[in-house]
Amino acid sequence: MSFATDTAVTAAADGEFAAEIRPGWDVVGNANGGYLMAIAARAMAPAARPDPISITAHFLSPGRPGPVIVGAETVKEGRSYTTVRCTLRADRPVLTVLGTFGDLSEPVDAPERVDAAPPDLPPPDDCVRVVPSESGFPPPMMDNLDLRIHPHDATFAVGEPSGRPMFRGWLRFEGEQMDTVGLLLAVDSFPPTIFNAHLPVAWTPTLELTTHVRARPAPGWLRCQFTTRFITGGMLEEDGEVWDSTGRLVAQSRQLALLPRGS
Amino acid sequence: MSFATDTAVTAAADGEFAAEIRPGWDVVGNANGGYLMAIAARAMAPAARPDPISITAHFLSPGRPGPVIVGAETVKEGRSYTTVRCTLRADRPVLTVLGTFGDLSEPVDAPERVDAAPPDLPPPDDCVRVVPSESGFPPPMMDNLDLRIHPHDATFAVGEPSGRPMFRGWLRFEGEQMDTVGLLLAVDSFPPTIFNAHLPVAWTPTLELTTHVRARPAPGWLRCQFTTRFITGGMLEEDGEVWDSTGRLVAQSRQLALLPRGS
Repeated sequence: MSFATDTAVTAAADGEFAAEIRPGWDVVGNANGGYLMAIAARAMAPAARPDPISITAHFLSPGRPGPVIVGAETVKEGRSYTTVRCTLRADRPVLTVLGTFGDLSEPVDAPERVDAAPPDLPPPDDCVRVVPSESGFPPPMMDNLDLRIHPHDATFAVGEPSGRPMFRGWLRFEGEQMDTVGLLLAVDSFPPTIFNAHLPVAWTPTLELTTHVRARPAPGWLRCQFTTRFITGGMLEEDGEVWDSTGRLVAQSRQLALLPRGS
Repeated sequence: MSFATDTAVTAAADGEFAAEIRPGWDVVGNANGGYLMAIAARAMAPAARPDPISITAHFLSPGRPGPVIVGAETVKEGRSYTTVRCTLRADRPVLTVLGTFGDLSEPVDAPERVDAAPPDLPPPDDCVRVVPSESGFPPPMMDNLDLRIHPHDATFAVGEPSGRPMFRGWLRFEGEQMDTVGLLLAVDSFPPTIFNAHLPVAWTPTLELTTHVRARPAPGWLRCQFTTRFITGGMLEEDGEVWDSTGRLVAQSRQLALLPRGS
């Protein structure tokens, strides 16, 4: 079981791809959204443009383990980028995706200015490692990921949320280098930020998730931060930042999730 | 000339809509991205679900004044939301859009928590009103919009950028109430944040723009803030927040723009 093989796709007819939602990437039976986007991205990405620059998914129904079809359609092939849309479906549509792909293999010669820094984290061994539970949460994919949560953000697990809807921590794959498609999972691999708010909310389904990839991650640990500032109108956003071991921002994400009504 | 009439669409055959990119919504000849998204949203929105909850556009080629066709396709009609995708095209595709629509007419009974506040602005009359220039920038749509920039952010116009890639200000339509489709324009109506950075960059084309709408705006002025934190990898994000006259967050946006290489 590896992320690369578990997100592989096989070209079928008419721009369609066959794939399989593998067991072990679910949260209580429903496949992780970032994992599903990774399968879609493998089908969408042109061979010469493997890196998702900006990719958005709208989630339509739960993804269960089993075979799926990805119908990918190129909307525009430009000089530097290719824009593709697709719907991944089993017996019904599971998610629909729009993305622009490019080639991030070469360094870019352009001005830089960063008004932010990676989260300040204790060493990985001083953070709290997330391990799968037989209850289904934490999910079984924590066998494939090595996720270490900042101790200040980790006490929610023993019934003491920090009071601030935020998670910070280290992340890497077990025994596998993370590529830019792996980043699509990385941004959706932490517990929901709302677990650290003092709100009686357990389950916030994602309506939409967008990830921007700025660079291919260097080998080693990723530093991640996920923050929510607006729980309002029955919705909340979750903003993610992922930095690689060289201190470079490699991905930025935002998802829109729904609160249960009347909760 | 009004936003409502200038974004109107007419149903044609096979789920297609006819529309027109009207003159006056361009920036130096190219139609504003938020204006184009508004046309697309008019075609995409089901009658009973007029509010874009989350909508993403990837920009493919400049939109010039003239007739366009919007091919809209419903991906899923759910219990509360409808997900639609479309491509708006003239002689070539101009933008491709994915959105989920709902009905925000009723107040929502759900927990609220906001860790942010609207920008602190001097009264509109003490801010700097943006008026069209014959040069094309500021653009002619500033006749339809009443945009007042915070004086601290406005000196870029006389060659003195603030040094911080941010704009804050008041916004409203001239003589027209703003609906949730109008918010798609609102989030793309301020000058690019990079105009306030000390960087030799003039033109940053938008690759992708996502807007989340949390609520229908109350009548009156909107308070807006646009910020960039990451100019890196040849790209920059621009994060927008729009608050209505009751102090409520009504929209959040993020766009990914491209820096010219080697600049």
